[in-house]
Parts: sequence; C-alpha cells; structure tokens
Amino acid sequence: MGTNLTRKIIESHCVAGRLQPGEEIALKIDHTLLQDATGTMAMLEFESLGLDRVRVDLAAQYVDHNLLQTDFRNADDHRYLQSTCARYGIHFSRPGNGISHQVHLENFGKPGLTLLGADSHTPAAAGLSMLAFGAGGLDIALAMAGRPYFLPCPKVLGVRLEGSLPSWISAKDIILEMLRRYGVKGCRGMVVEYYGPGVATLTVEDRAAIGNMGTELGATSSLFPSDENTRNYLASQQRKADWQALEADENAVYDEYDVIDLAEVEPLIACPSSPGDVVAVREVAGTPVDQVIIGSSANSGLKDLLRVSSIMAGRHSAAHTDLQINPGSRQVLENVIAADGLLPLVTAGAKINQSGCLGCIGMGQAPGTGQVSLRTFPRNFPGRSGTKDDRVYLCSPETAAAAALKGVITDPRALADEMAYPEVHDPEQRLVDRSSIVFPSEELQATEVVRGPNIVPLPDFAPLPESLELRVALKVGDNLSTDAIMPAGNTVLPLRSNIEAISKFVFYQVDQDFHDRCRLLGDGAVIGGENYGQGSSREHAALAPRFLGIRIKITKSYARIHQANLCNFGILPLIFNDPDDYDAITNSSVIELPGIRASVESGATEIAIRVDGKEMITLLEVSDRQRQSLLAGGTLNLVRQELGGEQLLNP
Amino acid sequence: MGTNLTRKIIESHCVAGRLQPGEEIALKIDHTLLQDATGTMAMLEFESLGLDRVRVDLAAQYVDHNLLQTDFRNADDHRYLQSTCARYGIHFSRPGNGISHQVHLENFGKPGLTLLGADSHTPAAAGLSMLAFGAGGLDIALAMAGRPYFLPCPKVLGVRLEGSLPSWISAKDIILEMLRRYGVKGCRGMVVEYYGPGVATLTVEDRAAIGNMGTELGATSSLFPSDENTRNYLASQQRKADWQALEADENAVYDEYDVIDLAEVEPLIACPSSPGDVVAVREVAGTPVDQVIIGSSANSGLKDLLRVSSIMAGRHSAAHTDLQINPGSRQVLENVIAADGLLPLVTAGAKINQSGCLGCIGMGQAPGTGQVSLRTFPRNFPGRSGTKDDRVYLCSPETAAAAALKGVITDPRALADEMAYPEVHDPEQRLVDRSSIVFPSEELQATEVVRGPNIVPLPDFAPLPESLELRVALKVGDNLSTDAIMPAGNTVLPLRSNIEAISKFVFYQVDQDFHDRCRLLGDGAVIGGENYGQGSSREHAALAPRFLGIRIKITKSYARIHQANLCNFGILPLIFNDPDDYDAITNSSVIELPGIRASVESGATEIAIRVDGKEMITLLEVSDRQRQSLLAGGTLNLVRQELGGEQLLNP
Repeated sequence: MGTNLTRKIIESHCVAGRLQPGEEIALKIDHTLLQDATGTMAMLEFESLGLDRVRVDLAAQYVDHNLLQTDFRNADDHRYLQSTCARYGIHFSRPGNGISHQVHLENFGKPGLTLLGADSHTPAAAGLSMLAFGAGGLDIALAMAGRPYFLPCPKVLGVRLEGSLPSWISAKDIILEMLRRYGVKGCRGMVVEYYGPGVATLTVEDRAAIGNMGTELGATSSLFPSDENTRNYLASQQRKADWQALEADENAVYDEYDVIDLAEVEPLIACPSSPGDVVAVREVAGTPVDQVIIGSSANSGLKDLLRVSSIMAGRHSAAHTDLQINPGSRQVLENVIAADGLLPLVTAGAKINQSGCLGCIGMGQAPGTGQVSLRTFPRNFPGRSGTKDDRVYLCSPETAAAAALKGVITDPRALADEMAYPEVHDPEQRLVDRSSIVFPSEELQATEVVRGPNIVPLPDFAPLPESLELRVALKVGDNLSTDAIMPAGNTVLPLRSNIEAISKFVFYQVDQDFHDRCRLLGDGAVIGGENYGQGSSREHAALAPRFLGIRIKITKSYARIHQANLCNFGILPLIFNDPDDYDAITNSSVIELPGIRASVESGATEIAIRVDGKEMITLLEVSDRQRQSLLAGGTLNLVRQELGGEQLLNP
Repeated sequence: MGTNLTRKIIESHCVAGRLQPGEEIALKIDHTLLQDATGTMAMLEFESLGLDRVRVDLAAQYVDHNLLQTDFRNADDHRYLQSTCARYGIHFSRPGNGISHQVHLENFGKPGLTLLGADSHTPAAAGLSMLAFGAGGLDIALAMAGRPYFLPCPKVLGVRLEGSLPSWISAKDIILEMLRRYGVKGCRGMVVEYYGPGVATLTVEDRAAIGNMGTELGATSSLFPSDENTRNYLASQQRKADWQALEADENAVYDEYDVIDLAEVEPLIACPSSPGDVVAVREVAGTPVDQVIIGSSANSGLKDLLRVSSIMAGRHSAAHTDLQINPGSRQVLENVIAADGLLPLVTAGAKINQSGCLGCIGMGQAPGTGQVSLRTFPRNFPGRSGTKDDRVYLCSPETAAAAALKGVITDPRALADEMAYPEVHDPEQRLVDRSSIVFPSEELQATEVVRGPNIVPLPDFAPLPESLELRVALKVGDNLSTDAIMPAGNTVLPLRSNIEAISKFVFYQVDQDFHDRCRLLGDGAVIGGENYGQGSSREHAALAPRFLGIRIKITKSYARIHQANLCNFGILPLIFNDPDDYDAITNSSVIELPGIRASVESGATEIAIRVDGKEMITLLEVSDRQRQSLLAGGTLNLVRQELGGEQLLNP
C-alpha cells in the first residue's frame, strides 16, 4: 500500500498533530508569498510582532493587484512594501513584474516544498509540485515569523488522468471538468492530487492553471508530480539544480478517487456568475460577446499566449468585441516578444496591458451595461468585474480566442475549418530576467520604512467577554463569496491598509446600509448559508466586520480559509446544528450567548444560544489553538503574548 | 511682401469676416476630431440638432481617454460612440487604438486642410501642416453639421528655426524653450508659425510634439511647412498622394517675429506645477525621481520610443524609479516591435501600457505622496496627475530616460560618458494597420444607437433674462486651468455624458463646497484673475457651472477656448475694465446687472454692473454671433432655431 505524494510532503513538514483527516496539524512553511492587496495588512501585522527580520527560508512580496494608481494610495503602498521588504529581508517583485503565482514559479518554486500565500490561488504552485496553501495575511505574517501553519489535516482526492487532450482543448477545460463534477464546494477539506499517464501531457504552466483554479472547487490545495516536464521547465529557467523527481508510490492509496479521460474532455465554460456553473461551450454558442480578456492569474503563461497569437495571426477581433491581453509576468511578455508572438496579437486588435491581475480583481476592464465578457480568469462571482449584474464567463484561451474572432461564443473546434490547431511547445531555454526583483541585502536595519497617510496601524480588539448579546446585522444565503463580504475593485482595494476606511464597504454589494447599521447596533451577528466565505483569502472579510462590531457568525458551513480568518480576528464561526434553524432567525433577531467565554474555554463543541428568547444549538468546530485565539480576541493578541517567550517559533 | 503659410490656409478657408487680427472670422472646417472624454457630450449635442448624418469631409471619433474601465461607464461610452459613428457616418478608432492626434496624423491628416478638434492639443496636426484648432465639443458638433468655425482672426508669430539640435536634445526642448520665453499666456491670440532652415531637421512627429504643446503657450494654433519630410512621412504611411508642398512665401510678413538657434537649445524641464515654469535640466539635476512616464499625447511617436529603447538597452531603471511607457498608437507599438525596440524596454523594467492618454489625464499612473514624477506629457497643472500636491515635471524623452536610469533628474548629456547618442531615423515604410478603425458604411440609418444609463440627454437652459442679480459663488486667482474648474481623472471623466452627476465635481479641487453652495445661492457669479480657463478644451468647464446656476464670470482675462465655451453655454464672460476692481469683490458680494439683456442686445462693449451697491465697469468683448448665443441662453438654443431653415449650414 503506497503513499500518495500529498501525504509524503505533509509528513516531511509536519511538526505537530496527527495525520488524521480533520484533525489539526502544523506544517513547517518553506516559502511565503504576499501580494500587495493582502500584503500591506500582512506587513503591518508582521511589523506588530516586533521581529528584526523574517524567519522563513524564502519570503516574497509581489505587486500585482493595485496597478492602476488612480490616486496616491497605490504608489504609497508600493513604496511601503518595497521599504519593508528591504527592512525585513523579503524578496520584492516590482510593480508590473507579474502575477505572484507566475513569478514564483519562474524564480523561486521548488518541488516538494511548502508555500503559504496570502492569496487563495497560491495552489498554482502545484505546477512545480509544491504543496501550497492560500491563507489570511496574518497566517502568512506568522509563517514569516517562523511559526508553522495550522490547518485541518486534509483528505486526498486522487484524480487519475488518462490519455491526452484533443486539439483545441487545453488545461483550463480539465479544471472546468472538475468544476462540472464537483461544483464550488465539492472538494472542501481535500487536496486534489493528479496522477497517472495523462499528467505527462501537461506542462508546468498547464498544471499551474489547474492548481490555481482548484481553489474554486473549495479544495485545500492541489498537487502534481514532479517529472521530466518539471525538470525541463526548471532548466528553461536556468534552475535545473532546483529539480527533484517526486511522485506518489505505485499503488498509492487515496481517500477518494476519480478518473478523467483527457481524450473525452470537451471545451467547457463557466457561466455567470459562478465558477461552478459549467456547461459545454456548444450549449451557449452563438451568444454575442462584447469583451474577451486573456491572461491574468490563470492561463497567462507563455504557451497560452503564443497559442492565442497563432490563432489570431492575420485575423482581427470582431468589430464589436474588445480584446485584451494581461500577460502573467514580464518574463512571459519578453518571451512572447522574442518568439515573434506579440505583433500578431497587436495587429489583431488586442490591447496589451502591463502584467498583473487587473480585471480579475476588478481593477479596470469592467464590462459595460448588459455586456457579455469571456475571460480566462479563475473567478466570476457577481459584481467582481466592477459592473453590477455582470455577465462574465470563464473559459480556455482557445475558446476566448474563438469568441474574439467570431464575436460570439464559439466552440473553438469550429476554427478547424479555417486553420490547423497551432502546435506550441515550451522552449528549451527561456529569456530569464530577474532584474525587476529586488533581492534582500544583508544590511536590513539601515532601511527606513516609508509610510504614506493611508498606511494605518491595526486596530486593537478586546478579548471575548463573559457573555454576549447581539443583534443580527445581516442575513444572507448560500455560497456567499468574500467578494460579497469585502469587495475588491479599484475603489476599495487601495484601502486595504486602512481598516477604518475599508470598513465602509463591508457587504456594500449586498446591503449599502450595513456599515451605518453596525455603527448603531453595537455588537452584531451575521447569518449565512452553506459554503459561507468562499473565494478569496482576504482576511479583510473578517477583520473589517470585526472592526464594525461583528462578534459571531452563524452559518450552515464555512469555506476553509474564511473560517480560519474569523478565528484569527476573534469572530466566533458558529454552525447551525440543525440547518432548519437558519429559517428561525430574522434580520431583527436578538441573539444571546450567556457564559460564552466559559463555553469556549471548556472546549465545548455544542454552544447553546438564545435567539429571540428561544434556545438553539450551534456548533463550534475549531481547534484548541483557535479557541485560544477566540478567547484572546484574535490571534495577534495571542501571539504577541506568546512571543515574549518565543514559545511558538520552534514548537 | 510675401504671405505667411497661416494666412494662406486661412484665406483659402475663410467664408466670412475680415482678416484683421481680433475680428471674428468663419473658417470652413475640413476634418473634425473627437475623443471620448469630450466626444460623448459632443455627440449628444450633434444628435440634438436632428441631422441625418455628418456634413463634413471627414469626421473621426477616437477613444483614448477613458480606457481604465473602472466601472460600466467607460465601456458604455465606447459602445455609445461606436454606434453613433455608424449611425451618422463617422470614422471610429477603437479603444486602445491610440491617441487622437497620433492616429489622425497616421491615417487622415493632409497638408493645407483645417481640423477642428474637441481636444486642446488638436494643433498637434501642425506636424502635417494642417491648421488645427482645439474647441469645445459644441463647436465640433456644429462643424460636423457643416457649419464653419468662428474665431477671432489670429495674429501670426513667425519663429525662424536656424541650425540643428545637438545630440541629447530634441523637439520637446524646442517647445520648452518657447515656454521659457513666452510663458503660458504669451501667445494668446496667435498662431505660432515655424519656418526657416531648422525646420528640415525635424520629423513630422517632432513637429507634432511642438504643435501639441504649443497649446500651453496660450496659442490659437501652431503650424509647420509641408516639405520633403512631410512627403516621406506620408509615403511611409502609404499615403503619398495626400502630400502637397506648402510653405510661406519668401520674405513672408508676420505680425511678430522670433528666432531660435537650435544649436543653442539645451535640455529644459518644466517644473511643478505649470508648463511655463521652465528651467535648464542642470538647474534641478540630482532631484530623486520616483516615477518616469514616456509617451501619452506628446513624444509618443516611433522615433521617441525607439530612441528611449536604445538608451535603456542592456540597462535597468533605478530600483526606486517606476518606468512606464504609453505608446501613442497601436501603429507606433507595432513599429517599435517590428524594429526590435520593445524587448529592451521591457527588460529595462518598463511597464508597457495600452496606447492612450492614461496618466496625462489622470486616468491612473498617479504618483505617491510627495513623489517626483517626470513625464513627457504636455501638462502638469496642480493635481492633474490624480495626486494632490503632486510634483510633476515635463521633459524630453531623453531627459526622462536619463532620470529612469539614474534615479535622479539628470542632464541627458551626462549619458555621453557611457554611450553614443542613439541615431534613430524614421523608416521609409512603416507597418500600416488600419484594421482597428471602423470606417463608416453607406447604410447609416439602419444602425441603432446604444445608450447606457450614464448617457443622459443635455439639460435645457433658459435665455438671458432682462436683469440679473447674483451672489459671488467663488473668487479665484490667476492662470486657473480648466482642470481646476472641472477636474478630469478616473473618478470624474466617466461622468462626462451626465451633466447632473459631473456637476458635483465643479471646482472640487479648489473648494469642495462649491456644488452645494450653488444649490443654495441660486444664480451665481465666479470671479477670476488673468488667463482664466487655460488648458483643456473641455466645455464641461462651462456647461456644468451653467447647470449649477453660474450666469456670469468676471476676470482680468480669458483663455480663448474657455471664453468661447462660456458663450456657447450662455455664461457672460465679463472682464474688469479696471483690473484693480478685482480686489473690491469678495466671496460674499452681491452683483446686480440691471437691464443686462438690453445691454447685450445693443452691442455694448461696456457693461455697467453694481457690486454691493457700488457701480463698476466691465467689458463684454464678444462677437455679434456670440451675443446672439448669450441672449438665446446658449449656442445650441440659437442653432436649433436657425436649423429649422438651415440658415447657417451654408453661410
């Protein structure tokens, strides 16, 4: 009975806990990743720990989200981050150098290591066989302080890939097939490990696209073996020495199993407005398309852009269809240029944007009223594009290019009538340019940290009181994303380092009065349905509501990262014991939690509460460590106490 | 006694008036140019005239300002403009295809023609020997309706160029030398006509950069001869047949004269925050630079970008200096790629943005708090960058590149120690790509105009009443720009088609209470100093205050386009007869204009008003046609009456 690869990496990094699915374990973290949208707060948190420098093998800070610079705040953030990186020994990837996931693959990723990133798509590092997790910024700040990462031990879903993809069908269609099968919460608590003969047909960047969007399955992470393709990729990055072969044992055991015959995959598309609403492209063919965007955090690598370039070469986007390209990194753009791939794109009408996330996080590229937008991005939650009632579809680069050419949603196999499927292969040697990464120097203390007026210290939070009495501030339905709790986009993202300012936008898309109501209510509660808090890793979706007085949430279930973030900021993540109780709570209910501090201290899983005077049972399914955080009023309070004695740095 | 070239083109296009400086003349307009920021309102105005199609030889609509798409409005505007172009027979240059001035040069400009554009930098067409004027959108709408353009007959300043520029010094330094000599109002009422042997040393794009920024002199327009360089440029654009030789007669007479010995020009730079605050680069050398942006509406052509590429090749921008490139057009970018000029820029750390105005109009690229930004743009009015208290310098591409490399303001001649000055020549044949221009088809009526919710019809304005009694709403100082009256930038520009919404931002940078105070005051007045309303052609700087009840302005003097816009929207542009009277008016003064309608009707130039009960003489120096507009409550009211009989279409 062999061991799967996920288990191997977990075993080699586990510093506490039993490897039983659901039980809390602690993993040593080798690399940390921050991006600017989560990174300003994470750096403020790291600074508040009072350490001299980072205590992790490699810490990297990317600037890929806030690139529009619509006022002073973006540039101030960039300067703050660059100066903290110099101060504390962190690699700084300059603004416009590319998306964290892509640049980390190119420059730093190594098979078999762990990576913790303040970005939910951090599992893109699966492409290089790293076991990578998205988490809230505070968890990354703690990892940068040398602390392990605590998480529930995941199950492992083994997905055997067989055969090879037909022409016009690519990696994106594989992950869309997974989303078709599992939906947006079907893989919660799991690492999705791909194995089998089909793996060898996928490049590192293909695997990264699958790992990236695996987050949309609700998965804890995704993983691929490290093989010849991995070695060739690292060699093409002048990093052959970083390679090692890694794979599951023969006859490895998984907690669950699935199989995909790649030859049977067809072009798929996620319809508005969930990554899980997947249908065959042919089912929605003919829908007029106003906008096509290729790139951003998924499918922005070299092969994807060169293939689109070949498809568009000598042709032009339809007169009513806007075509935009967001390269994944400066290196990708350089290699596209060197391969003569850029000119055909520009002459086909494509707008070439600086490398970065851009429209994927609502930083520009918003579609017009009622317009249809096709994107190779991983997410299409409602309004995330920056346009209310948006109609965003997610698809492969091939499907996107076909739509750009035809002006309507088109099965890309229809292009076979006019052209051969472009054969594109990864180059043996890429242009490698690390000149836009500022490497940390030895002289850390000499550097002054530059703080603009929007870089505001963290608020302090009080410990959990003996009892709570709260008013319901809001009740929402199933699958609410963190985009709905704490919107991104060009208005809100620049406020990520200023909790008071950003708190005005909490639940803004759902209920514009939320902020003002909380200010009147005092302590409040939020009621939710299934898979509450799916999507982004943004801790602001916990931190800003906590700032507004939200002390508990009660839902039918939580997305993993968001539940951890709630504990980190002292919000009790309660679950209805009886899901039908959801219906008994109204928008004006009063909730009492008598003796709640004692209950949490006691380790009780069942918490009795009173809703409008009537008793109800809720569940508090958190680890002992999370209980301590909740009692302390948040993990930062807890860790600051502990750091006096450096207790948790080497557990 | 020979005739200058300006006079020749005026004579060939004059359909009414005497060619005496200051007297109103009417010119036939051959081409019109709109961009999206002024174009949505201009198209609403054109639509309100009720015509079937444009009645001008060539009308072009560019989309170059609102490219960020931070919400639905930008994309809605683009679709509205594209559909009105199809409906009324206008050439549509798609979003991201480039800046109006650059794309018009490439595709449509012809020596000897007149061009009227709703953009103050329209005189960039001087590069192709067009007599080109910036004007408010309504004037362009009327020209599109076949009506001539009315303006005060300009004086002509003849500037003889001798010799040739030394290495490291380029066209931008010539116009900065003019600004050093004349300041921002020294050329009001004039066309600046360049002649002499030095002209042959300048390419069409060099001349366009000088014509573009000639607007900052307060000039009505600028003009260059059409010569071999012009022919070669048109040939490189596959438009040789569009060429004709044009020059002033030998011994041509000018109203005023000046001479520039190009060999004596040195690297110059305009300091914060006026294009007229010009000093030698060496005087501010050593100042740390946080941001460098090359391109946008000036110095974004092929030679400029290729030269910067050669300077940066194999080097990298300083670690603290952000480098951005805004290509002037898709064609420029294509030719930079084809000449292998793009890769050196990208590897030097440059962010490549889509072609457009971007930071020049405050659409992104805002510098951080206290940061220094060097730009090749034409303007640096306070706050125009999107950052309050900004520190924006204007300079040549060479000076900008030197700053990017060294991280401090650097005389580019200092680079001679490490490299030869790159020799860059215009290619005989450029890649020519007109595929992103939608040419109008014959079937105009069939097209449906698409209006998003932000495309709001024009408000109606009442005629001038018999008498006025007003309160002063605001008093400001000298050289106030239209950026201060009606800000641009990413928050405000998307509201250009919605007067009620945009009116909330009138004078926002100067006084955030202006809008609310106007709502309380009723009819109001604005008091200003010299050169009031310099800068952009935006008619919203007249239209939105008029919507708020501003009925008169009293200043020491006006910038030309803004004064015309005030008349177009029924605001009386009064001038202090005694400039010292400026001091007698306070922020709470009450102004009475008894019998003002009769005074305007009578043709009186002197208008007696009462300020806080005390008499004061003001001047109304407008044409008879403008008096009719003022009486009617605006030109649109007047023209709609007249268009019943089509009286003014063929005057």
